[in-house]
Amino acid sequence: MIDFRTHPDQYRHWRLAVDGDIATLALDVDEAGGIAGDYALKLNSYDLGVDIELADAVQRLRFEHPGVRAVVLTSAKERVFSAGANIPMLSRSSHIDKVNFCKFTNETRNAIEDASANAGQRWMTVIAGTAAGGGYELALATDHILLVDDGSTAVSLPEVPLLAVLPGTGGLTRVVDKRCVRRDRADYFCTTGEGVRGRRALEWKLVDELVPRSRLDDAVASRAAALAEGSDRPADAKGVALPRLERTVDDDDIAYRHVRVALDRTQGTATLTVATPDAPPPAEAKAIHAAGADFWPLALARELDDAILHLRFNEPALGTWILRTTGAADHVAAADAALAANARDWLVREITLYLKRTLKRLDVSARSLVALIEPGSCFTGTLLELALAADRSFMLDGTFEGSNEAPATVRLTAMNAGPLPMANGLSRLASRFLGDDAALAAAQDAVGDDLDAEAADALGLVTFIPDDIDWEDEVRIAVEARAAFSPDALSGMEASLRFAGPETLETKIFGRLSAWQNWIFQRPNTVGPDGALKLYGSGVQPTFDRNRV
Amino acid sequence: MIDFRTHPDQYRHWRLAVDGDIATLALDVDEAGGIAGDYALKLNSYDLGVDIELADAVQRLRFEHPGVRAVVLTSAKERVFSAGANIPMLSRSSHIDKVNFCKFTNETRNAIEDASANAGQRWMTVIAGTAAGGGYELALATDHILLVDDGSTAVSLPEVPLLAVLPGTGGLTRVVDKRCVRRDRADYFCTTGEGVRGRRALEWKLVDELVPRSRLDDAVASRAAALAEGSDRPADAKGVALPRLERTVDDDDIAYRHVRVALDRTQGTATLTVATPDAPPPAEAKAIHAAGADFWPLALARELDDAILHLRFNEPALGTWILRTTGAADHVAAADAALAANARDWLVREITLYLKRTLKRLDVSARSLVALIEPGSCFTGTLLELALAADRSFMLDGTFEGSNEAPATVRLTAMNAGPLPMANGLSRLASRFLGDDAALAAAQDAVGDDLDAEAADALGLVTFIPDDIDWEDEVRIAVEARAAFSPDALSGMEASLRFAGPETLETKIFGRLSAWQNWIFQRPNTVGPDGALKLYGSGVQPTFDRNRV
Repeated sequence: MIDFRTHPDQYRHWRLAVDGDIATLALDVDEAGGIAGDYALKLNSYDLGVDIELADAVQRLRFEHPGVRAVVLTSAKERVFSAGANIPMLSRSSHIDKVNFCKFTNETRNAIEDASANAGQRWMTVIAGTAAGGGYELALATDHILLVDDGSTAVSLPEVPLLAVLPGTGGLTRVVDKRCVRRDRADYFCTTGEGVRGRRALEWKLVDELVPRSRLDDAVASRAAALAEGSDRPADAKGVALPRLERTVDDDDIAYRHVRVALDRTQGTATLTVATPDAPPPAEAKAIHAAGADFWPLALARELDDAILHLRFNEPALGTWILRTTGAADHVAAADAALAANARDWLVREITLYLKRTLKRLDVSARSLVALIEPGSCFTGTLLELALAADRSFMLDGTFEGSNEAPATVRLTAMNAGPLPMANGLSRLASRFLGDDAALAAAQDAVGDDLDAEAADALGLVTFIPDDIDWEDEVRIAVEARAAFSPDALSGMEASLRFAGPETLETKIFGRLSAWQNWIFQRPNTVGPDGALKLYGSGVQPTFDRNRV
Repeated sequence: MIDFRTHPDQYRHWRLAVDGDIATLALDVDEAGGIAGDYALKLNSYDLGVDIELADAVQRLRFEHPGVRAVVLTSAKERVFSAGANIPMLSRSSHIDKVNFCKFTNETRNAIEDASANAGQRWMTVIAGTAAGGGYELALATDHILLVDDGSTAVSLPEVPLLAVLPGTGGLTRVVDKRCVRRDRADYFCTTGEGVRGRRALEWKLVDELVPRSRLDDAVASRAAALAEGSDRPADAKGVALPRLERTVDDDDIAYRHVRVALDRTQGTATLTVATPDAPPPAEAKAIHAAGADFWPLALARELDDAILHLRFNEPALGTWILRTTGAADHVAAADAALAANARDWLVREITLYLKRTLKRLDVSARSLVALIEPGSCFTGTLLELALAADRSFMLDGTFEGSNEAPATVRLTAMNAGPLPMANGLSRLASRFLGDDAALAAAQDAVGDDLDAEAADALGLVTFIPDDIDWEDEVRIAVEARAAFSPDALSGMEASLRFAGPETLETKIFGRLSAWQNWIFQRPNTVGPDGALKLYGSGVQPTFDRNRV
């Protein structure tokens, strides 16, 4: 079982040091520390375990170190930055594991870019030694790449020439779309195993700065200081510790404090139920800081994030996630109001950004998402995003026979109108009503209203509103049908339908690049017995089927 | 060998009728007329042969029928519009054939949208009977979908539930991005084999108009008239006939009048050499009309288009296309000037749009493109687009030893600055200099200048400028290296690097959707012995590996 929970005290591969407003995160991979154990992580190459620690460090830097304004990503090893994803690991991984690995590492890099863009924590990379493949791709996620000009240090994306795969963590897209490297130069770069160094790397915009080794420390210090300069992070704030997430994992049930996951292996479903706290969460910044990781929206984000990752990696056969909520809509509304009222507070900003990233994880999860909106639920504001993220939602019109619960309602809050955008840059509401400004405006006008099934349907917020008589059949049929379809076709369909509208670096990476990589990860030229990934390091050259597709 | 040349007199599957400014194109598939012969094209289902005729009709309507302002796409069969791509054909096709088939059919649908958007020829679809899968996708390419409201006529995309594949000609993207169908409704629609009919189809924006069968003829006539109304196509112009393209195809050589293709099966290359005419093409509209299909830019577009399609379908093992030109740069410049000066003439507009579509075919061809710019070449204006479309270009700096030819130059014309955009909506020049407005402006300032290798290099128009001593080695190494890489990895890499910048319906379909489809077309759940595509129609249900990827 893959466990995503870790802590700097447990890191085997990274060293995190904070000095004033500058943090240094140094990659120092333990060769013997592979998560699956049967390969050596040579030359600072990485596997999922290394990236789990990186994701943890990115997260803790944001919550536990409010004073850090610049992060220097570097290597603790001589003459190598990182050789990228470990090849023997990739070569032994199943198709599912490869794809899941790429998705998670992409999300980690996006979290770095999110810190830079939205949280005043700018990242730079110091490359003094080989930065190949995923190593260079990691650098591409940072704001500034400093390259040592020593005649040998090079950056490279050797995946195509050496392994017959694509760079799996956004490298191609970031080279041409983020760094605007000219496409013909990018073509040369991506087909050249040895990479590009020195002046050419700078001229081609593959790196931002060239520094002789003798001036390295000074250059890094002054560049980090310059990056830190414009940051709006607080100078004297106290961080919020992220204690180890408590959970119990049984065969058919995973329980966190606020999130519960029921696993039905026969049906092929995981039902995630999110609960509100018993009392409204604090409204004032001071009290939010005092609550820290116990503040419900933060606890929710952490638990949901962990549950999503757990299900993705450990329960691939559960193809449908059913999303439910339970508790008091007013408490969700109160939490949302607290987030909105204190949006300029550094911690509240971090919590909102974390909720955003967690919901984005849901959007790119290769699972069918079905929201069930029943009496007792609280699909309000941030929790309504779960229903808006779903491929389909069912809302009970009226009550169940014999029940004295009030009919379900849904409620929009300010959190639905912008602070939690999808990867395409639009709110889920705006994505939903693409090309229909009137419908979007009507929904936004309803912020604060408790909407019963008919009202929610009229506003286009839910898919179907069966009544008590039809509910069970309709939901059952939908879930059973989903389980009967090809999981692959569903993944491709959902990835296409979820992201209408504008494309961004992120949607390009998850939509376009990942799809190509999925394809290539299956081709005999890559993974067959004579494929490049299987033969890498053997001294035997792969033999390719030369037909172009 | 697949031959893309056809003519209405030879059509087996379509009936084209023109009445004033309205054309009617009726699908009437000959069951026995499959291009590969061993399957029956039931229920107006189609294969490549049907689509080759459709592409021909789209083309001829534009050139031979300047007076046609609206096209009514309909079925000549009772109770069925089209069942979509033929399943037994798909099931028997190789992976390459499936992917090539989808790409070509997508291009045909894009040509319909291009006619609507840019050439004043609006398309509508009349659906009076089943429109399933590719049948409905064809309708999605038109401006207006009229559905008969008879209680049974439905539109559907049953690919996911019935075949475990995606709709292969842009259906998912057009539903959510073009027609802005709400994503949860799209999800329901795309997982419902029987489709959606009547009022719900209209409410969900799947169709534009509902008409009872009794009023069908009137409704079609009045809608077609309304579509024709705003068109700027000429009332009394004479069309330009497109005679059968003359060519000779030998084992290692394909010769057209202006395009020559040398096939090197050992090296895995096809060298396309485009020649200018001996004299400048006519400059005045009247003379251009008189020349008709002999007007060099039109002849060039037709020949290049045919050569690209021929190589794609018939020579999949030739993975690198080497692009060369020969002749007089001034003649190309004269042709470009004629196109620019007469841009408002209907025929000239069609020719420019055809050149645009042909160059777009090059962009989405899964082949490595290398341009060689040598003495005697004429990479000017429209022909310079070939070098700008290439993944890499080499320009000889100076002359070959012992030759008395002048050094090569390249020249930009107005045709490089906008009229020939890529699928992303940008000119190749703007795509090349994405994020570098100064470089784009500098290149545009050089319009009209003959640029030698150093000048072209300084402006960023070419990749490498080896001299006589290095030329042969550099080019040879580049071409040999390309042949040694995995063709699949190259396809994925090139598709990613060629389309930086904005995304459009077209780039989404070719980049995102095609990649997912490539992947799915390989999955055992789809094409394995127990996969959905293999078992379709057998009565046996497929058994799926339920793991989600």
